[in-house]
Amino acid sequence: MSQLIYEGKAKKVFTSDTPDQYILYFKDDATAFNAQKKDVIEGKGVLNQKIATQIFQYLIKHQIPTHFVASISDREMKVDAVQIIPVEVIIRNITAGSLCKRLGIKEGITLKEPLVEFCYKNDALGDPLMIEEHIYILELATKEDIALIKKQSLRINELLQKMFLELGIVLADFKLEFGKNKKGEIVLADEITPDGCRLWDKETGKILDKDRFRKDLGGLAEAYTEVLERLSKF
Amino acid sequence: MSQLIYEGKAKKVFTSDTPDQYILYFKDDATAFNAQKKDVIEGKGVLNQKIATQIFQYLIKHQIPTHFVASISDREMKVDAVQIIPVEVIIRNITAGSLCKRLGIKEGITLKEPLVEFCYKNDALGDPLMIEEHIYILELATKEDIALIKKQSLRINELLQKMFLELGIVLADFKLEFGKNKKGEIVLADEITPDGCRLWDKETGKILDKDRFRKDLGGLAEAYTEVLERLSKF
Repeated sequence: MSQLIYEGKAKKVFTSDTPDQYILYFKDDATAFNAQKKDVIEGKGVLNQKIATQIFQYLIKHQIPTHFVASISDREMKVDAVQIIPVEVIIRNITAGSLCKRLGIKEGITLKEPLVEFCYKNDALGDPLMIEEHIYILELATKEDIALIKKQSLRINELLQKMFLELGIVLADFKLEFGKNKKGEIVLADEITPDGCRLWDKETGKILDKDRFRKDLGGLAEAYTEVLERLSKF
Repeated sequence: MSQLIYEGKAKKVFTSDTPDQYILYFKDDATAFNAQKKDVIEGKGVLNQKIATQIFQYLIKHQIPTHFVASISDREMKVDAVQIIPVEVIIRNITAGSLCKRLGIKEGITLKEPLVEFCYKNDALGDPLMIEEHIYILELATKEDIALIKKQSLRINELLQKMFLELGIVLADFKLEFGKNKKGEIVLADEITPDGCRLWDKETGKILDKDRFRKDLGGLAEAYTEVLERLSKF
C-alpha cells in the first residue's frame, strides 16, 4: 500500500511498491503569492504530469541526472526517492516577476547572461531570497553542492531555451529544485511545468504559464494544453 | 555660501568653500524601519559626529581610504566629495536583526566567518537585499569595485572588532557605504556610528546602539555617550 509522505501545493508524494522510489501525484490545485490566492483548475494536474514527463525525458536524453523514472498514469509519475535540498533555484533569461519588484526594473528586458538566484524553500518565511553564504550558514547545502547545482541549472536552461524556442516559446524564467538520492548524488527533482516557468509565445507574447492565474487572465488550462501540444510535436 | 545638496535621514550634505569637498551635518533625527518610526533625540547629532570622527581617524591611521577630511564643528565634518555607490554593505559577526527575520534563525549566534551582504540603497524599494549579480544588472558598480569593497569591508571589520573589544564592546554587525572620489578611487564614505552598528556591552550584553530606539528601550543618548566616552579613552 502506498502511503502519503508529503503534500505540497500542487503535488502529493506517496511511497511505492519499489523501495527507494516514490510516486508523484499531480493535483489540480493552483496557488500563487505563497498560497494567499488559491483555486482548483480542472485538468491542470493531468496537463502538468504530461508536460513534466516530456521535459524530464528530453533532459534525460541530454544526460541531465533527474529523479524521473517513469510515467505510470495520467496524474502519476514514479521517481527516485531523494532528500529535497530546500533551496529553490530561479534561472532568469528575461526580467519579470519578483526580480522587477525587488529592484524596480521593467519587465521584458533580456539579460546579458542568465541570472541564477537562490531562495530558501520555506513557506513560513515566504521563500526569501538568499545570498550563497546564507545557504552555508543554514547548512542547507555545501559549496560543492551549490557549484554543481548552478552548473546543472545553467545547462538545463540552455537545453530548455533551445527546445522551447523551436516550439515558438520564449523561456523568460523558471524554478528548479534538486535532491540527493541514496547514492548521495544530486539530481534534478520536483517538476518542470508552466506552474514554475514563465513561457511567452514568441510571436504574440501570449502568456502560456501560471501568470494567467496570478494576473487573473483566465484560460490557464487552454494555455497549458497549448504548451503540451507543441511539446508533443517536438 | 554653502548650499544643501542632499538631506538624508540623519545627516545633511552641504557644499563647502573648498572645491571637491562637502560638509556633513549630523542631525538629531532618529528613524527606523525605513523611516516608518521617527523621533528627535536631542544631542544625537553631536554624539554621532564625535563618534564618527574618532572612528574615521582610527581607520585612517590604519591605512583605510575614507572621505573624511576634518572635524569642523560639533555637528559638522568636512569630507571629500564622492559619488555614493548606492549599495549598502552589511558586515555581520553575530546573527541579529534582518538576517534572523529573513532566515528564521536565533539572534546572538557567532558566525564561523564574517558575513558580507549587499542591499540596494533605495528607500522606495525598502533597501532590498541583493545578490552580487543584481548589482551588475543595475550597473551600480563593477565586479572590480565590488571585490575591492568586500576586501575593504572585511579589513574595516577586523579593525573595528579589535578596537571595540578593547573597549569592552562586541561589534555584532554594522553598515558601510562607499563612494568614488574625483580621482575615481573608491573610499569609505557616509559615517560609522551606533546608528548603523549593533554594539553590545561585552559583560552585561547591554545594547549601546540604535536598537534602543527600534525596540523602545529608551536611553539612546546615554548609550551613545557611553560609546563616545569609551572611544575617547582608546
